[in-house]
Amino acid sequence: MLLTSADNPEIKNLRKLLADSAARREQKSFVIEGFKIFQFARQIQTIYAREDIILPAQLRIHRHRYIAPTVFAGISEVENPQGIMAVCRLPEPGQFSAARKYIFLDRLQDPGNLGTIVRTAAALGWDGLICNKGCADIFAPKAVRASMGALFTLDILFAEIGEIAGLSGQIIAADLQGVPPEDLRLDGGYVLAVGSEGQGLSPEVGQCAAQKVCLPFHKNKAESLNAAVAAGILLYELSRRGQG
Amino acid sequence: MLLTSADNPEIKNLRKLLADSAARREQKSFVIEGFKIFQFARQIQTIYAREDIILPAQLRIHRHRYIAPTVFAGISEVENPQGIMAVCRLPEPGQFSAARKYIFLDRLQDPGNLGTIVRTAAALGWDGLICNKGCADIFAPKAVRASMGALFTLDILFAEIGEIAGLSGQIIAADLQGVPPEDLRLDGGYVLAVGSEGQGLSPEVGQCAAQKVCLPFHKNKAESLNAAVAAGILLYELSRRGQG
Repeated sequence: MLLTSADNPEIKNLRKLLADSAARREQKSFVIEGFKIFQFARQIQTIYAREDIILPAQLRIHRHRYIAPTVFAGISEVENPQGIMAVCRLPEPGQFSAARKYIFLDRLQDPGNLGTIVRTAAALGWDGLICNKGCADIFAPKAVRASMGALFTLDILFAEIGEIAGLSGQIIAADLQGVPPEDLRLDGGYVLAVGSEGQGLSPEVGQCAAQKVCLPFHKNKAESLNAAVAAGILLYELSRRGQG
Repeated sequence: MLLTSADNPEIKNLRKLLADSAARREQKSFVIEGFKIFQFARQIQTIYAREDIILPAQLRIHRHRYIAPTVFAGISEVENPQGIMAVCRLPEPGQFSAARKYIFLDRLQDPGNLGTIVRTAAALGWDGLICNKGCADIFAPKAVRASMGALFTLDILFAEIGEIAGLSGQIIAADLQGVPPEDLRLDGGYVLAVGSEGQGLSPEVGQCAAQKVCLPFHKNKAESLNAAVAAGILLYELSRRGQG
């Protein structure tokens, strides 16, 4: 079936799911774009391919629609579209377990940073990621793109720090007053909490922390580290420590 | 002096310096934007402030021009402009020294990744950064912005791998066939070479490498690490090793 009009209801809904986080929650669905992400994709509902795309056999088993090139170009969020999108069900939120290792994101605003942290946490073998209410939507197109599909391989949870503080082995907060990662006492499961790009950690998160960690850096050379890079270094350091 | 027309020659030149890397090379100048970056800025030629901005005294000592708000909005590259830009001289390229520690970027394409790596390398106390010809322009607005001013605090060099291979203590290439960072033999100065986002390292860079390094990650959970995050983890690991 070829969709040729931008006013087609399915096309309009695709655009809505890309633009609107309330629509994503209501329909329990979000949009992925580009071929690479499909290797990790789960619960695909419908694939939308540009008319010139030849769908591989393993994708043709899903419900699929073709879209006229001009219409596809009008929907795509990327500079050089590969001609493929899909609507997927939102993953079920994971169950918190005190024995596991999570990264907690406190009001992280930049969807690119969010998605990059998902990608790093998954790649480095962390068990899950927790977003609080102040975070940008992790299923927004930019975050999904930056995650490169890792959104499907990592447990994603939504909770406030108060809801997990009592359940967790310990909370370790990234904070300028912290110790270097090698000085942390690690044992069993824990939650690493990192703050927003501009404002750092909120006071209630800091108060729940059993330990604080800080990456030493030269303050006369740079104002700070990028949030996704700092999180990445901590994720690496702590995951290596866990194996030591 | 208030510039009120988008056709003013200074305004036109600002726009040219923002858009065009050939113009930046020819005029040996580039543009910085936003207040935070000024704490590190050097060789400021002219400051351009939106009419409503009150310039701090330490900035008023420079040649400065005010710009009508509508004209400023038309030039600015950011979503929420702070109302301040400046034209600065390009920093003089640094001199390579075998005793120092450099990161070499092989055909890195994304200006945001480039700038983020500059910021990380400066923050973690590396001596300099080397771009080869295949890299995006490190003085492009997106790269400058992502560097958060660290472009002014880190030695930036432009060279091909062949020009430095004979001079360097050793070249360490980030490569999927490499050893974990803790297994590297480090002694004195070295050059850490990292490849482009899509294609990895070019063969000539790999051939110059005395050692190869790879961050272990779970290939069933993510396709790869983000280039700026992977570089950040390596920069951190190697700088910590140097202190051990």
